[in-house]
Amino acid sequence: MRADRIDHIGVAVRSIEERLKVYRDLLKLDPVKIEELPERGLRVAFVSVGDTRIELLEPIAENSQVSKFLETRGEGIHHMAFHVDDIEAAIKEAVELEIVPLTKEAQPGASGTRVVFLHPKSAGGVLIELVEGFH
Amino acid sequence: MRADRIDHIGVAVRSIEERLKVYRDLLKLDPVKIEELPERGLRVAFVSVGDTRIELLEPIAENSQVSKFLETRGEGIHHMAFHVDDIEAAIKEAVELEIVPLTKEAQPGASGTRVVFLHPKSAGGVLIELVEGFH
Repeated sequence: MRADRIDHIGVAVRSIEERLKVYRDLLKLDPVKIEELPERGLRVAFVSVGDTRIELLEPIAENSQVSKFLETRGEGIHHMAFHVDDIEAAIKEAVELEIVPLTKEAQPGASGTRVVFLHPKSAGGVLIELVEGFH
Repeated sequence: MRADRIDHIGVAVRSIEERLKVYRDLLKLDPVKIEELPERGLRVAFVSVGDTRIELLEPIAENSQVSKFLETRGEGIHHMAFHVDDIEAAIKEAVELEIVPLTKEAQPGASGTRVVFLHPKSAGGVLIELVEGFH
């Protein structure tokens, strides 16, 4: 199992519109694709840059994971996601290296992807997501 | 001025060796290039992934910028750097958009690059670096 690129970098924001000033207006990144994900309590904007994307995460429900992050840490980078071609192999290798996955098995992600998060305590304070598939 | 890719993502770590467990051993990223930068009080490891890099920043002096970050925030993502082809144009456009550069002019970066940081307060809590040139 080898990560071949950063799939996306997740950034927690209070307002996508406000933060597009940096990514769309200054850095001229496009396209900007905005989606509502009511089941996760989020609005999400994906902004392409090179072979990766910035994912702006704006909570639309008080109990979303990102609301809690904003309350305790404020706006900022929330997680970093790596694209892998075999998520089961990745989970197995993580456990062998004593890096703790947050779930025992891969979970369904957006657009048919399969994802797992690794505990920030075993990854130097960085919430790392592994993503198999494309979206 | 348009950013064409993420130049690197800077991650503050207490020990490069310890953190290579995730990036080298699990994600199988290489090459890993380690440099000492005594004038900045840092050891730095660059790890390639797709068209970008992870920059692991380990302080080797108590008064480095990264030591202060580790003291107050702990290990984690420190900054995100975008590659631009005209840093003067970028600084001018940032000021027009009321995004505050930390220095009025571009500063010399590694390997002949020229860099500027944008104030996290005007970029949604993210310390954004703009980089002109290649290293």
